Amino acid sequence: MAIKYELIKECKQSGARLGRITTPHGVIETPIFMPVGTKATVKAMTPEELKEIETQILLSNTFHLYLRPGHELIEKAGGLHKFMNWDGPILTDSGGFQVFSLDKLREITEEGVEFRSFVDGSKHFFTPEKSMEVQNALGSDIMMAFDECPPYPADKEYVRKSLEMTTRWAKRSKDAHKNPETQALFGIIQGGMFRDLREQSAKELIELDFPGYAIGGLSVGEPKELMIEVLKYTTPMMPKDKPRYLMGVGTPDYIFEAAISGIDMFDCVLPTRIARNGTAMTSQGRINLKNAKFFDDFTPLDDECDCYACRNYTKSYIRHLVKENEILGARLLTIHNLNFLLRLSENIREAIKNDRLLDYKEEFYKKYGYIK
Amino acid sequence: MAIKYELIKECKQSGARLGRITTPHGVIETPIFMPVGTKATVKAMTPEELKEIETQILLSNTFHLYLRPGHELIEKAGGLHKFMNWDGPILTDSGGFQVFSLDKLREITEEGVEFRSFVDGSKHFFTPEKSMEVQNALGSDIMMAFDECPPYPADKEYVRKSLEMTTRWAKRSKDAHKNPETQALFGIIQGGMFRDLREQSAKELIELDFPGYAIGGLSVGEPKELMIEVLKYTTPMMPKDKPRYLMGVGTPDYIFEAAISGIDMFDCVLPTRIARNGTAMTSQGRINLKNAKFFDDFTPLDDECDCYACRNYTKSYIRHLVKENEILGARLLTIHNLNFLLRLSENIREAIKNDRLLDYKEEFYKKYGYIK
Repeated sequence: MAIKYELIKECKQSGARLGRITTPHGVIETPIFMPVGTKATVKAMTPEELKEIETQILLSNTFHLYLRPGHELIEKAGGLHKFMNWDGPILTDSGGFQVFSLDKLREITEEGVEFRSFVDGSKHFFTPEKSMEVQNALGSDIMMAFDECPPYPADKEYVRKSLEMTTRWAKRSKDAHKNPETQALFGIIQGGMFRDLREQSAKELIELDFPGYAIGGLSVGEPKELMIEVLKYTTPMMPKDKPRYLMGVGTPDYIFEAAISGIDMFDCVLPTRIARNGTAMTSQGRINLKNAKFFDDFTPLDDECDCYACRNYTKSYIRHLVKENEILGARLLTIHNLNFLLRLSENIREAIKNDRLLDYKEEFYKKYGYIK
Repeated sequence: MAIKYELIKECKQSGARLGRITTPHGVIETPIFMPVGTKATVKAMTPEELKEIETQILLSNTFHLYLRPGHELIEKAGGLHKFMNWDGPILTDSGGFQVFSLDKLREITEEGVEFRSFVDGSKHFFTPEKSMEVQNALGSDIMMAFDECPPYPADKEYVRKSLEMTTRWAKRSKDAHKNPETQALFGIIQGGMFRDLREQSAKELIELDFPGYAIGGLSVGEPKELMIEVLKYTTPMMPKDKPRYLMGVGTPDYIFEAAISGIDMFDCVLPTRIARNGTAMTSQGRINLKNAKFFDDFTPLDDECDCYACRNYTKSYIRHLVKENEILGARLLTIHNLNFLLRLSENIREAIKNDRLLDYKEEFYKKYGYIK
């Protein structure tokens, strides 16, 4: 087996769990936020900077790397770890979500998805087998099965057919996967916003016995309350002895809800994307450095933070960098935001250890304020 | 006196000199290339990264900082060193060159230069007194007197009048300078491409007894041969016991000629600008990473280089980053190019020490190839 999951402890105050995943490239303490390095680089960061803030695992995007520079090149370079000089664990997605996002540029059949590249208009065909071929070439520690992610809203019959195809594609993914001893393949539970369909999907995928499971099809535009409702009833359907991954979550409120529901891993481009737009996540809530009030504010981004940006620079200086589109501005805010979510993950693990995750959540929100 | 210059040794093979400048923020070994941090940041770099490649002194631009974020803010922050978190020496220019570059947006009189901001169209008036006020507020270790830089070509009568005004402005700069004990003010020798006018300018400025001198009005579009001719006859006009600075030079060929002529300091945005455009300076000459031949080239940018980029990444990966406009690509190439010029400066100092600068130049060009 490529990975080993240990359930260390369950929180007595919530459904949260403290765990540990051992991968070929190192150990991951869960629950954990995973920074996203879409194109074989976490935007604006070096691997050393990622390690300084104690990044445990990166996510990279199969679809983007398939198109450019191509998985054959990365395989020739010795795999994704070597290509990008990151020796820690890497998770790759299946490419499915990106392919479906192409909307009018793609066509879905039982065999797979045909699409035109947004880069040069060239025709491509993505299948479970192709996704495995690409992810095997990349050499990620954790791979995702090729799934269909239905839009929101979608009618029940469509979602049922879709999840059943996702199960068949999961089976084909498993069969096509060449390196189960060094790369763990996760199944993705679909079923939209329908409890019985989530149950059906979970049951079918669990029969295929993947080393880990993800919840897909959430954070696709549904109301927050609905998302949390689905999350709360779906997570308990997942095996206890395997890691659980919620895709596309990267704000404190969703991270708390995910952890409380018993999720172990989550990822999102949001913290790095808003950093490049001048926004910092702080213990007092989000702030946008473009705001005029920071012009002569000589305090750090967050006085509770000890990241490189907060140890060395003022809001006034970072605001100047942001206003002038200086690369250092994007760098400092990216370091800060990723550190914020990694420290939040750390604090959540500590709270689980002490059976007080709900208390910690309340303390956190007293400062942070409520986010819709 | 704010700075102290020691002439350690003259090269027996050329006019080059090994020296040392002691400033309030540290010692500078000369000849030295100075990276440019136009807007209080060397684009894409942190101060720690600049130190790792042994940057000894930075240049920053008075005109840009005056417009945004404003020198009053930087003074309030505790000066430019503190604002940008760089505790080494800083040189600021006078703002003159940038103001004159505005072309149709400015009007020159004996009093100073009136111009409209390219930012918001607002009207500004720059004078020697204003330039000193701004540079005093920034707190740079080395300041430049406010000068007029004539264009190329320009007729002799215009250049004569211009240099005479530059002398009067230099006198006014000196009189307006508030901190001569902590900030050294350099005079700028003008005189265009006319030897007698360079002599006149040098003579007039030397009478004003500045702690250092620069050659202005070169690298403004004249042919390379002419530039080197002017450089070769102007440098010997400068005092031996004070630092000599050639403005706007940042390619190996000009750096060699400057050092050989007896210049101690030089700066240019070129290495950082071409880095962001995908170009690396290497011991084999310049290479552009966008070139298809680097697609699967798994060797470092320069096999004689030991910078962070060359120790850890391949041309293939950096090419991918450059093609995808990833910030890390700009970062790696900037580190590499600045390191290249700083190591070149170091090798030049070593060659002067061993009385073999002309030999070293020949060895360098054998690999580098000739650059027009």
